[in-house]
Amino acid sequence: MKKTKLKILEPKKKVGLIVVITGHGKGKTTSALGIALRASGYDMKVCIIEFLKGNMYSGEIDGIKRLSPNVELYLTGKGFYGIRGDTFTHKDHRESAQKGLKLAKKKMLSGEFDILILDEINNAVSLKLVDLSQILELIKNKPPFLHIIMTGRDAHPEVIKRAHTVTEMKEIKHSLGERIEPQKGIDY
Amino acid sequence: MKKTKLKILEPKKKVGLIVVITGHGKGKTTSALGIALRASGYDMKVCIIEFLKGNMYSGEIDGIKRLSPNVELYLTGKGFYGIRGDTFTHKDHRESAQKGLKLAKKKMLSGEFDILILDEINNAVSLKLVDLSQILELIKNKPPFLHIIMTGRDAHPEVIKRAHTVTEMKEIKHSLGERIEPQKGIDY
Repeated sequence: MKKTKLKILEPKKKVGLIVVITGHGKGKTTSALGIALRASGYDMKVCIIEFLKGNMYSGEIDGIKRLSPNVELYLTGKGFYGIRGDTFTHKDHRESAQKGLKLAKKKMLSGEFDILILDEINNAVSLKLVDLSQILELIKNKPPFLHIIMTGRDAHPEVIKRAHTVTEMKEIKHSLGERIEPQKGIDY
Repeated sequence: MKKTKLKILEPKKKVGLIVVITGHGKGKTTSALGIALRASGYDMKVCIIEFLKGNMYSGEIDGIKRLSPNVELYLTGKGFYGIRGDTFTHKDHRESAQKGLKLAKKKMLSGEFDILILDEINNAVSLKLVDLSQILELIKNKPPFLHIIMTGRDAHPEVIKRAHTVTEMKEIKHSLGERIEPQKGIDY
């Protein structure tokens, strides 16, 4: 890894991008984590807010600690909405998501971060835990150099319209379809 | 982050998966980096071999150092093949890729890793820097508990056939299309 021999790029014009990672395939949150890892290598500051997780341990919690203080992670959710074992009401989930959104605004305007990752925010909108108008307002108030990454299924067309880069992750096949249990380090 | 209050999953039956991340959209390598970050949180050991990169600095080089010794990264390529500024012949690129493949076999059989990430290996096959038969042999000799992640455009159908999980990353739009230069931390 002879860094000195490697070409180093630097954009002439810095633009804070809106990146949307959507679709039903595996890899959306994972890709956002990869962005955080790479950015930490540039010594950029990243804030990750996970909207729908929060009741389950995942390796990213301890992985991200190794990137501290460059990367901060907040779990604001009560777990996935409407799946088996979900004992919370829509109102409960909405309250959590609204807290997450409030935190997102605060972090966005703090000036402390280069990248703000709103994980599963697209689902939060489609599940009406966050209003579309709230997200559009957030986007409207984005500081010019801040990058915002929004992950989750079913991104709203109005969000896609405002994004610079949009990737849809399409599931071609998944090990769960072969009755293989979720595997640690790959599926969670 | 009250880890003790979070549900912790553990599969009853451990299976070493083959995961293919392909398509023309942004996020393939990034997603593999996210897998490495999450796995490092479980204290799993990850080896990443990048096949087509190697001449350009990217933040992941220093980001991954923070995950050391859990994650190792090797750049075995000479940079992307056939793009502007590429001064190497097909033979040069093939030699590098073959060295990468040799290293991949060695790391795969070392027993030291839980996850082996072969970044851009799909392109290496489609560019004939590595033969399909070589990849199929690698897959055939995979130790049962090892997860292999293979990224890059144009994954071969025979590789997809042998994979457990396959995601296609589809580009819906990209900031480059709006004539925005590649941005550090997002595009590289």
